[in-house]
Amino acid sequence: MISAIDSSATLRVLRYGLTRDWVAGLKVVDGRGEILECNAGLVKNASGYDLRHLFIGSEGTLGLIVEATLRLTDRPSESRVMLLAVSGLEGMMDVFKQFNEALTLMAFEFISDLAMRHVREGHNMPAPMDEGSPFYALLEFECADPAAEDMAMSCFEICLEQGSVVDGVISQSEAQAADLWRYREGISEAITPFTPYKNDLSVRISEVPAYLNDLDKLAKSHYPDFEVLWYGHFGDGNLHMNILKPEGMLVEKFEEICAGVNAEVFALTRAHGGSISAEHGIGLLKQDYLGYCRSEVDIERMRGIKKVFDPAGILNPGKLLG
Amino acid sequence: MISAIDSSATLRVLRYGLTRDWVAGLKVVDGRGEILECNAGLVKNASGYDLRHLFIGSEGTLGLIVEATLRLTDRPSESRVMLLAVSGLEGMMDVFKQFNEALTLMAFEFISDLAMRHVREGHNMPAPMDEGSPFYALLEFECADPAAEDMAMSCFEICLEQGSVVDGVISQSEAQAADLWRYREGISEAITPFTPYKNDLSVRISEVPAYLNDLDKLAKSHYPDFEVLWYGHFGDGNLHMNILKPEGMLVEKFEEICAGVNAEVFALTRAHGGSISAEHGIGLLKQDYLGYCRSEVDIERMRGIKKVFDPAGILNPGKLLG
Repeated sequence: MISAIDSSATLRVLRYGLTRDWVAGLKVVDGRGEILECNAGLVKNASGYDLRHLFIGSEGTLGLIVEATLRLTDRPSESRVMLLAVSGLEGMMDVFKQFNEALTLMAFEFISDLAMRHVREGHNMPAPMDEGSPFYALLEFECADPAAEDMAMSCFEICLEQGSVVDGVISQSEAQAADLWRYREGISEAITPFTPYKNDLSVRISEVPAYLNDLDKLAKSHYPDFEVLWYGHFGDGNLHMNILKPEGMLVEKFEEICAGVNAEVFALTRAHGGSISAEHGIGLLKQDYLGYCRSEVDIERMRGIKKVFDPAGILNPGKLLG
Repeated sequence: MISAIDSSATLRVLRYGLTRDWVAGLKVVDGRGEILECNAGLVKNASGYDLRHLFIGSEGTLGLIVEATLRLTDRPSESRVMLLAVSGLEGMMDVFKQFNEALTLMAFEFISDLAMRHVREGHNMPAPMDEGSPFYALLEFECADPAAEDMAMSCFEICLEQGSVVDGVISQSEAQAADLWRYREGISEAITPFTPYKNDLSVRISEVPAYLNDLDKLAKSHYPDFEVLWYGHFGDGNLHMNILKPEGMLVEKFEEICAGVNAEVFALTRAHGGSISAEHGIGLLKQDYLGYCRSEVDIERMRGIKKVFDPAGILNPGKLLG
């Protein structure tokens, strides 16, 4: 049961889902079979440890969430979507800064040229604009005030002059906004036939260009014959690296080759202060690599917490902590 | 050391401080003398249990926070402050709903008539408006768009017509806004000479009128000779009940009488689904009452977590969990 806490506002489902900040209460059954009421929908509560955030993201290893109370927020304001052809990675950071300072961004996504080619082929979509480029930025900004659109156009012109952007389009209707989003949201489906080997990485936003640069070099040196494409939530520092299986190669062989580079990818992630899992968790596949973003002490404490809530290890056994 | 995560925006310090959502990273030394790096300033991270929120609000019983990384947010927009004379408790809820639906509220505070009288006497302040009333609402709303001010005036007129509001003032400058805030912010200092017995309670927002009504009855029946005044963060469901010591009564005697009613106050709080500590923690004074807002199972799990991070019990010993 999802119950909403008091507010007259409409539930705002952001394009990329709820964040943990929206969870005002959880009812959980833990591994001892006992019920925990966490925060009960209160806005303010300073009565001991807040267990909500332990359960969120614990991949079912501490308890079963049987009820969640979510905070409501304002109805989203009108918005515009822009797709920009960006000259390179450094340029992407400049574009992000330019627009982020001037506008209220609701999303700032990026798409590599190869990802753009695949999404267009996969869905039979036209070129979004005349000029091509190595990267594209897809951004959405609040536009309650018409001045925001003028501001966006000024940002666009500044980026053009600086050379960080070479071309761009802006939505003038909800239908056009949806069409532009398809260049980003259609990627995952378009590359599915290529059995992609996926990575879900994150670093601090300012670290993205340097990290992506290093990672791209690493990928190219290890997979000279594979297509490596990029897309993701640039504005969150969250990058999806997808390696496509060449036609004719056995899946097992392909995955073995890709997994052989995991340790190097994650070592690079650690060097840039990042996480080996931004959104999708550790599960079974990333268990051996958890040490690349959590310290030994950290993992020991997590095991200790696991024992508190699930001493017999009956909740999602084998996942996350093994 | 406070380091800021990437953002071009200015740090926004809200009037009532940071919330836990703003903490992007913590470095903590726990009771085993080991360092934990929690989240390292990332926006997205799904690599195991999030320990940040365990430490926040743990009153120093799990670890010493030696570094915090805070998220930045947009510079606050222009705003206006209104002080409204509200006809009664039910009316307060109507006023809150009216303004909360129409505007972006930055604060919605309430002040009882007795609190108003004390703050005026204590600071030699004039009556804020012609009409007096049993309660006052002090609200601040975003006013980037001049239409917001017109909207606020419409809300005010609707409330006047409905009878929930009998009078009001609105700030036309930052100096006026600061003057209006003094009616709220000056209360605590103004009542200090009366050695107030303080409560820091919270319930869901919709529960506030019923809860406050019950609580006020309880207070009046137990303390017929004491002044009981109210103020607090209505928009957060957070109420401060202050009982003033009559002149000439010994502090020890006064506190004994007040504390004698704690169990009833907290039982009522429990009945309304609230917390016995909204902002200030459990510490030593509320330890015996923790069970009024946390279950036995909850407390047992908290003790288990305490042992994981501080097996020898050397961190802030005796506080929170005893």
